[in-house]
Amino acid sequence: MASLHELSYDECDELLRAGVFGRVVFNRPTGPEVVPVNYMVVGDAVLVRTAPDTLLDRYADGVPLVFEVDHVDYTRRHGWSVVARGIGCRVPPHELHEEERTAPQPPRWVNRDDASWLRLPWVTLTGRRLGQGWHPLEELPVRRASAV
Amino acid sequence: MASLHELSYDECDELLRAGVFGRVVFNRPTGPEVVPVNYMVVGDAVLVRTAPDTLLDRYADGVPLVFEVDHVDYTRRHGWSVVARGIGCRVPPHELHEEERTAPQPPRWVNRDDASWLRLPWVTLTGRRLGQGWHPLEELPVRRASAV
Repeated sequence: MASLHELSYDECDELLRAGVFGRVVFNRPTGPEVVPVNYMVVGDAVLVRTAPDTLLDRYADGVPLVFEVDHVDYTRRHGWSVVARGIGCRVPPHELHEEERTAPQPPRWVNRDDASWLRLPWVTLTGRRLGQGWHPLEELPVRRASAV
Repeated sequence: MASLHELSYDECDELLRAGVFGRVVFNRPTGPEVVPVNYMVVGDAVLVRTAPDTLLDRYADGVPLVFEVDHVDYTRRHGWSVVARGIGCRVPPHELHEEERTAPQPPRWVNRDDASWLRLPWVTLTGRRLGQGWHPLEELPVRRASAV
């Protein structure tokens, strides 16, 4: 059986930038929420496309957020997860930075009128992996074409 | 592009029971937390094996929890997610119900002295899928042998 190991900041950063799908976690007065989303990373921030009046649009602005990505290999019985933490910021499309507007956008799987973004400039970035002797980046199911 | 559709309770129930890996989400005084875990379902409760002094052991007892499972098919650009909500309950091994002790246990990938369980008897079970014309259960990467 494997042991849990902390990932370095650089490893977390590389995995987060390589991914396209993760989960935004935050707290509402009624309790915790988790919303699966496609995303992109620009600078040191996660960006998620959302729509007016969604949970993210209504409750994720100005509050502590956690953004989580992970991958599990069931056959080899190992996996990794990376967590970015910071304060969420709702951003109207016209307030996106130039770099954010021109970056390769998150996959657009949902058919709706999107008109809002959520930005999470992370304050901390941590992650864990199970076991050693394997490279998390080599086992990604999909990887952003733009990833360095 | 696909649209989001609500999954029925029965669909959510079936997907949750078929899985082995998900994420526990809860709130600490310092902000939200998300912990990836292996799990099992017994009766109408999610059960997670944990260890003394972990985040789950210390902060998930007696508070609102969300348990999330999802699956994404990047090639077909669709996926689903299921969320169980309720109040978490820390359970010492000797207080597990008979049915919980004898059920097929969650995969044990982490090497540590486990001596604590977290039980989440769900109050609500909801889920969403992207698009139609495909069956979420047929695209599971892995499925519990014990799933009905």
